[in-house]
Amino acid sequence: MHKIGIIGATGYTGSELVRLLYAHPEVEISVITSETHQGKAFSDIHPQFTGLVDITLESAQDIENRKLDLIFLALPHGVSMDFVKKLSASSAKIVDLSGDFRLSSKEVYESWYQKKHSYPEGFKNAVFGLPELYRTKIRKAKLVANPGCFPTGAILATAPLLKEEMIEPDRIFIDSKTGVTGAGIKAKDVTHFPNVNDNFKAYGIKKHRHTIEIQETIAYFSGKQATIQFTPHLLPVDRGILTSAYFIPVKKTSAKEIKTLFNEYYGNESFIRLRKTSPELKNIRGTNLVDIYPEYDERTGNIMVFAALDNLVKGAAGQAIQNMNIMLGIPEQTALDIIPLQP
Amino acid sequence: MHKIGIIGATGYTGSELVRLLYAHPEVEISVITSETHQGKAFSDIHPQFTGLVDITLESAQDIENRKLDLIFLALPHGVSMDFVKKLSASSAKIVDLSGDFRLSSKEVYESWYQKKHSYPEGFKNAVFGLPELYRTKIRKAKLVANPGCFPTGAILATAPLLKEEMIEPDRIFIDSKTGVTGAGIKAKDVTHFPNVNDNFKAYGIKKHRHTIEIQETIAYFSGKQATIQFTPHLLPVDRGILTSAYFIPVKKTSAKEIKTLFNEYYGNESFIRLRKTSPELKNIRGTNLVDIYPEYDERTGNIMVFAALDNLVKGAAGQAIQNMNIMLGIPEQTALDIIPLQP
Amino acid sequence: MHKIGIIGATGYTGSELVRLLYAHPEVEISVITSETHQGKAFSDIHPQFTGLVDITLESAQDIENRKLDLIFLALPHGVSMDFVKKLSASSAKIVDLSGDFRLSSKEVYESWYQKKHSYPEGFKNAVFGLPELYRTKIRKAKLVANPGCFPTGAILATAPLLKEEMIEPDRIFIDSKTGVTGAGIKAKDVTHFPNVNDNFKAYGIKKHRHTIEIQETIAYFSGKQATIQFTPHLLPVDRGILTSAYFIPVKKTSAKEIKTLFNEYYGNESFIRLRKTSPELKNIRGTNLVDIYPEYDERTGNIMVFAALDNLVKGAAGQAIQNMNIMLGIPEQTALDIIPLQP
Amino acid sequence: MHKIGIIGATGYTGSELVRLLYAHPEVEISVITSETHQGKAFSDIHPQFTGLVDITLESAQDIENRKLDLIFLALPHGVSMDFVKKLSASSAKIVDLSGDFRLSSKEVYESWYQKKHSYPEGFKNAVFGLPELYRTKIRKAKLVANPGCFPTGAILATAPLLKEEMIEPDRIFIDSKTGVTGAGIKAKDVTHFPNVNDNFKAYGIKKHRHTIEIQETIAYFSGKQATIQFTPHLLPVDRGILTSAYFIPVKKTSAKEIKTLFNEYYGNESFIRLRKTSPELKNIRGTNLVDIYPEYDERTGNIMVFAALDNLVKGAAGQAIQNMNIMLGIPEQTALDIIPLQP
Repeated sequence: MHKIGIIGATGYTGSELVRLLYAHPEVEISVITSETHQGKAFSDIHPQFTGLVDITLESAQDIENRKLDLIFLALPHGVSMDFVKKLSASSAKIVDLSGDFRLSSKEVYESWYQKKHSYPEGFKNAVFGLPELYRTKIRKAKLVANPGCFPTGAILATAPLLKEEMIEPDRIFIDSKTGVTGAGIKAKDVTHFPNVNDNFKAYGIKKHRHTIEIQETIAYFSGKQATIQFTPHLLPVDRGILTSAYFIPVKKTSAKEIKTLFNEYYGNESFIRLRKTSPELKNIRGTNLVDIYPEYDERTGNIMVFAALDNLVKGAAGQAIQNMNIMLGIPEQTALDIIPLQP
Repeated sequence: MHKIGIIGATGYTGSELVRLLYAHPEVEISVITSETHQGKAFSDIHPQFTGLVDITLESAQDIENRKLDLIFLALPHGVSMDFVKKLSASSAKIVDLSGDFRLSSKEVYESWYQKKHSYPEGFKNAVFGLPELYRTKIRKAKLVANPGCFPTGAILATAPLLKEEMIEPDRIFIDSKTGVTGAGIKAKDVTHFPNVNDNFKAYGIKKHRHTIEIQETIAYFSGKQATIQFTPHLLPVDRGILTSAYFIPVKKTSAKEIKTLFNEYYGNESFIRLRKTSPELKNIRGTNLVDIYPEYDERTGNIMVFAALDNLVKGAAGQAIQNMNIMLGIPEQTALDIIPLQP
Repeated sequence: MHKIGIIGATGYTGSELVRLLYAHPEVEISVITSETHQGKAFSDIHPQFTGLVDITLESAQDIENRKLDLIFLALPHGVSMDFVKKLSASSAKIVDLSGDFRLSSKEVYESWYQKKHSYPEGFKNAVFGLPELYRTKIRKAKLVANPGCFPTGAILATAPLLKEEMIEPDRIFIDSKTGVTGAGIKAKDVTHFPNVNDNFKAYGIKKHRHTIEIQETIAYFSGKQATIQFTPHLLPVDRGILTSAYFIPVKKTSAKEIKTLFNEYYGNESFIRLRKTSPELKNIRGTNLVDIYPEYDERTGNIMVFAALDNLVKGAAGQAIQNMNIMLGIPEQTALDIIPLQP
Repeated sequence: MHKIGIIGATGYTGSELVRLLYAHPEVEISVITSETHQGKAFSDIHPQFTGLVDITLESAQDIENRKLDLIFLALPHGVSMDFVKKLSASSAKIVDLSGDFRLSSKEVYESWYQKKHSYPEGFKNAVFGLPELYRTKIRKAKLVANPGCFPTGAILATAPLLKEEMIEPDRIFIDSKTGVTGAGIKAKDVTHFPNVNDNFKAYGIKKHRHTIEIQETIAYFSGKQATIQFTPHLLPVDRGILTSAYFIPVKKTSAKEIKTLFNEYYGNESFIRLRKTSPELKNIRGTNLVDIYPEYDERTGNIMVFAALDNLVKGAAGQAIQNMNIMLGIPEQTALDIIPLQP
């Protein structure tokens, strides 16, 4: 039994980690922390767990002295970096679900996050935790920067095409639509039910932080510079992101060639399903699956890729557990082999 | 490994049975049938299963000759009875998810369902599959009539009070609110999205078939006649039933006494959680749990009980698997020990 | 042209007043106030009005010196009472949309609202603004206490039955279901989209303030004491309340007698439609209509009444304008003769 | 009073026409037809109209002999063309809400609609009913082809940029998201509540019929050939379309230049609001407004335009009434000067 800690229990990623780890046969949750709610039961904060997971929340203060094999940081960006620093000497492996170590450098981080970075050393060691692209590195990593929810789908949709130099790198249009849980568990005007229900809008136009995460990652993976036009939209749904990506081919191609390419990259992946029509959010809800549909339009000469995932699972907690499984030498699907809740 | 058959694969109860049995370590699904879709993959009908359960659908024609330990009938009422008849000589145990054997007699059935009953012999042997009331009988049953979605909550809310002669038996008001999956997988006017979204109404006023199922079951369990006023309402949600039940005490009582009573009846049940405030649908979503909140109002002198369950799980497929576990001597929580998907 | 003022512009009742008055041919909005947002455009707060109503928000400080014919107080309870006091010497008529003057006395108010009342003199003059019951008094009123959203439907459903002594007065069960706008425009945990969407629960069990408003009003109207069991529930919809009310007859009755009774009371009302099946929220959405369906169940011997209204219109702003029309001698349907937005 | 006929009363466009015309002071609805439901009240089909519009439905058989000033055809494509033919000798003006006369020719129609066209002569006379581009022609038209819901937003977003030769004409990406009413009033699998609620997907990829309507119209308006990549998506909302359009500039430009351009084209339009942030569906719900937000991204060098409209109003019935007003010499805003229903 591997001993696991979860720092930050009050958000959606915290509760999803616990939901999924509950069925994991090879790890046990040794500690869940919350500074605000220490002493309360985990199920006081998330009442769906009542009678199932009533573990008492603790302070994270001496977390570095617990003998833990792996720690999940389910914290806001800006907070996570201090824990990574504090834990740098600990033997525990870390999966950081925040955005603090996903970019290439302190400079890029500070420019897009408008915030000082207190532990720039971390950028060197952090591995970007997208197993379908970086499985080998993740296996040996001490610190994994778990990808953002939008980047997971957008990168998987773009990486093969850019790597194979099939597309114009500076005219990439990523139009994403997300459920409301992406905005977090705290009530805000933007998540007030009457502001979301029966409504729809774009947001973060031109400046969403995931833009740079997508752009840097696909460039690093493919070895080519690229420019991403990324626009998120807010859906009146709880969970799920559908990404519609539009690309301009640089040479003549075909639907067959595109589909073959995606099959080469992802055909053996446990969590990627290549579909023959548009993916739907509910077909992956609650699971670590990504449904991807690549297509080419003969009439227009454009390539399109549609990708659907659950922002709280493959876009956060599920991917974090997939990374954990890899880091601890556990079969990758363990605790993640789940049928979607549909409807 | 117990061998299981599922007759009727195209509806929601069929797909929920498969979703839940997928994780069951002691049974294997030997056959899933569909007359309309035989030869197709199960995942062609329910695309969320693609790559996970692609088993080929077969005809049910010679189902009595397959060596099956237990068969789920996930069929409409009126169709199920013929299979029960056909399987009466088979050694397979049966859990029937239709309404065909839940009532006391052919006469009652024909009056409320407005349909001839072709196998009245079945009423004698059928055990009403509500384990919290009839676990012992279910253990020995050959045929279990799995309760309706509304009755499961309404009966659990009412049975202790009526059995203990605490309430006026002829003034029981059951006001239930259900998600849309209760209306089945087939598109109808009443389930057309713009007719449901941002809308709400009562339906089946005075004549819903579950009325008699509730009324007969609580009477049989308690040994007292009762009259139920049952009104279902249609919620713009996928899953879940919240039942608000109102009772008039026949003698002086108190909140404490009511809560103690419910604790005596259900305190040791794995799937019942007694709550201290109104249950919510999402706190039990996707699981076999029933959240029950009993209360007494000093000011008015009325008793109220609120109960929430997932109509497709504790209200159908999950309860069917709970019954199967009992009938096959498997620990009752197997494959049903699930954290709710919230949000 | 009558000159109108609206005190409190930032909530839903404020914006609904403006939406409806926009089309009113006989009144003009002279002033809209907001202490927090004075100097901003009304459409800065409610962007749907951009280009349509861009009137500048003012302070309410010297409101008593504006020559206004009628003032709407669209303020929280506890705040409204001070304005009523301040305006007591003004010639302007007042429609108060808060709960401050709907009850019978300071004592009752302070017990249910848990708040000191600063202007108990107001209770004497205030007329309860339900035109279908109190039209004559409203015509002459200086101060109208506009009914709460739940009470409007519950009272209309109950009043004829109690007045005619047809029902047991102490066993009245009012099970109401409301849209989220009833909770106001401010984001709270309870209105956070993932907490409401695909969810449902009861709230305010035993202690919701509208309980006493319903109970006192029907008692006053009918001249009989009564006890109300009132339970509100939260629907995942924006607007609308459906009330399902259950009554026990004190003498033999029939569906025909019940329907005749409601027709006698409401048959000539412009805003009440007596229906032959359960009302639906969307059939009255955005309008001042109340759809009422009275029924009697021969089998159980119970009476049921279902009533649907838009909580922001007939439950608030629309009823306030109906009251205004009556108070100013304008035909009652003016600006309220609207087709529901369905779907 | 102008006399108006509505052919086809059972769909959403029929009911929206009646909703909006109800408040029109200069026209009267002389006849509403339905072959299926003739003899019934209009409100039997659309119960929200009960007591408000109970007009009896008639057959359309002798519609050409009624002395009508203008006829709305609210019919499916393929059916409308026969009425246009039949009415060609009548003096009644026609606004056709179907897709039968929106394209340039029989050949294009038959290729995209996969259906024979029975009245190709109509293409010559039909004016594309987008007043913001073709007001002068509409004024004199006998037959107006009312635009499709998606094209209305997509064309308004694209036309100024293409006309002024600011964008690459063959790399235009139109990513649209629509509410469910766009799929019509008939229940289908794709509109079954559990298939839509909490779900999202693309559909009609590469082949939606509105693609060619957009492409032909912007080409005709600007005098330049263009190629449109158009992808619709299905939102879990009733009403509204948000279009996110991405363009590649052919010469250096700026946010200021783009905004100025849109202001020149639309600054004086009653129904277009140029916004400074992403439009939202609810801010235009129930109205004839189009909210447009044009933007330029310095970092990527791309132009983006976001446009929101109500698919049943500016995307159908409202625009049809706007066209009617123009054709009959009535002020264009009559009956369309409405505040959005928000929330």
